[in-house]
Amino acid sequence: MTVAQRASDRAPAAHAPVQRSGPAGGVGSAAPASAEQAVEDLRAFVGDDLAGVNAVILEKMQSPVALIPQLAGHIVAAGGKRLRPLLTLAAARMCGHRGRRHVLLAACVEFIHTATLLHDDVVDASDLRRGRATANAVWGNKASVLVGDFLFSRAFELMVSDGSLDVLRILSHASATIAEGEVLQLVTANDMATDEAAYLQVIESKTARLFAAASQIGAVVAGRPKGEEAALEAYGLNLGMAFQLVDDVLDYAARQAELGKAIGDDFRDGKVTLPVIFAFARGSEEERSFWRRCLEEQSYTDEDLLRATDLLVRHDALQGAMAVARRYGETARSALAVFPASEGKRVLGGLVDFCVARAY
Amino acid sequence: MTVAQRASDRAPAAHAPVQRSGPAGGVGSAAPASAEQAVEDLRAFVGDDLAGVNAVILEKMQSPVALIPQLAGHIVAAGGKRLRPLLTLAAARMCGHRGRRHVLLAACVEFIHTATLLHDDVVDASDLRRGRATANAVWGNKASVLVGDFLFSRAFELMVSDGSLDVLRILSHASATIAEGEVLQLVTANDMATDEAAYLQVIESKTARLFAAASQIGAVVAGRPKGEEAALEAYGLNLGMAFQLVDDVLDYAARQAELGKAIGDDFRDGKVTLPVIFAFARGSEEERSFWRRCLEEQSYTDEDLLRATDLLVRHDALQGAMAVARRYGETARSALAVFPASEGKRVLGGLVDFCVARAY
Repeated sequence: MTVAQRASDRAPAAHAPVQRSGPAGGVGSAAPASAEQAVEDLRAFVGDDLAGVNAVILEKMQSPVALIPQLAGHIVAAGGKRLRPLLTLAAARMCGHRGRRHVLLAACVEFIHTATLLHDDVVDASDLRRGRATANAVWGNKASVLVGDFLFSRAFELMVSDGSLDVLRILSHASATIAEGEVLQLVTANDMATDEAAYLQVIESKTARLFAAASQIGAVVAGRPKGEEAALEAYGLNLGMAFQLVDDVLDYAARQAELGKAIGDDFRDGKVTLPVIFAFARGSEEERSFWRRCLEEQSYTDEDLLRATDLLVRHDALQGAMAVARRYGETARSALAVFPASEGKRVLGGLVDFCVARAY
Repeated sequence: MTVAQRASDRAPAAHAPVQRSGPAGGVGSAAPASAEQAVEDLRAFVGDDLAGVNAVILEKMQSPVALIPQLAGHIVAAGGKRLRPLLTLAAARMCGHRGRRHVLLAACVEFIHTATLLHDDVVDASDLRRGRATANAVWGNKASVLVGDFLFSRAFELMVSDGSLDVLRILSHASATIAEGEVLQLVTANDMATDEAAYLQVIESKTARLFAAASQIGAVVAGRPKGEEAALEAYGLNLGMAFQLVDDVLDYAARQAELGKAIGDDFRDGKVTLPVIFAFARGSEEERSFWRRCLEEQSYTDEDLLRATDLLVRHDALQGAMAVARRYGETARSALAVFPASEGKRVLGGLVDFCVARAY
């Protein structure tokens, strides 16, 4: 399936963005109480299952080769929000699943995500992730690549032990798509000819497809009809689009302490994200030269990052990308319409608020 | 299962090594006619199946993201011997399989191997592989890691489409073991305390397990009893041990034009392979200091590589490792005893000659 809604930068936002006094024109520099509450509600809804996922992760990342649990433990300890496994847990529960299979499969989803992070660290040479030194910076490229491979293979071993070819099909396809998206991101970096469609393709592949798969397999383990599988897939896909769009806005707008990574990572990597695409399209010829010099030629100073942020604000580019994110969020929420009202449906719907309004 | 035979450097070789006038004391610097014939026999036995594997590889490495087939095509075009998929093809045929599933699965085996090569290129920063610039040298670390991830995920997608959980179990376990072996190799590099047992564990994990899995799944697709599966697994495992042992000897003994990679790659990477372990154990205190300086501290000159090769010859370390390889080869051949005489059994047995006597 394709993303339900290809957003345009022209359409007005369905809702006015929450105004805030952040450093970049008031875009999402602090999470509203409702967003924090959404994650709390989600965790409360899945109960002990999340602890179960963490236990599986800890057990299954073990190896007689000590460096593997050491390095994997570093990135697992970094924690993160466990958003993707939470999707599997909550979707399975909402669909009435009463067994334990979803806990194992949620751990597989997190392993795939973690492997991607480890390989992404190699790729982007980023210095900070969630405020800690990356595994790559501590142990080097070699170990990060290989431990990522181990976690990825281990995820497939675990899925095989679960025994569902449907789940294997969904997650192996998601994995191939992630890799395709990461390569496409590599190809479109440092290229100001990248347009909105190419950008959306990148984030759909590298981020949204795993959100979609994580949600969909919740319906699969519960043995729900294809229509419900498809609804959860659409929910996850659009939620993932919103999540990544906001992530790319926060790269220019968040405060480092809140986001846990350096402002401007994407700028320094020459990634052509939607805010940049908007500002470039709306900018003067001189401004376009500026963007080309910074992102294509990778020739910039600290002042240039300040100017970039200033241009993004001046051209409403951050607000524009947030509007696109909100529309994906609404589509995600709509996808849940096929399910009857329940606490599970409520917390999954609430997660849209978190993704769109989060600030960390 | 464990490797059937843990070789010791003390035991005499079952057969005297073939003497040759190579640069390093006569160890395998040219393939005897019988070794070349063994590979020809194998290719003749599988007939069109190998062309079928190449067609599947070419088709399934395609992606709308052009860099993926470009980069994958580079390493696929480099070709290699397709030894691992040939094992699957020949084992399936020997077991009486008459369908086409083995062709698809053999392509999966090659994808897993190719992904490992791509990630290994990142790891070892090696400059030459099979006489060509590595993908890494042409496209960079990022692309090599990500295209490797794509091929690896694609292999699992294809296995899922085949639908055998047994095959998935075998190959996902092999993949996790390969990654473990690669990490163990990383940990034992630059450490002269690495002993024969640790070395054998590395090569069993990083190389022999995929040979074992490639052979075993031939019996699985043919629906043969567990005993035959186990026999083919043991055959592949021991063959893979022999193959890697010879590879590690050739790193010091082969001529570059024949091996297609630079002599001394392992030396420069500080890999502690069996020849080095033997020479270190048999050397004087001064020689041990030499090995420590070169491999642990990575401080060496071109003359040091010549001296290293000289020490390996003087202490019969290359011959000693070849003797170990031959014993694994004999164990591989013995594992085929459960099968009745057939052309398939003959060519698989003949492959042992190739692995032990090959020079390219």
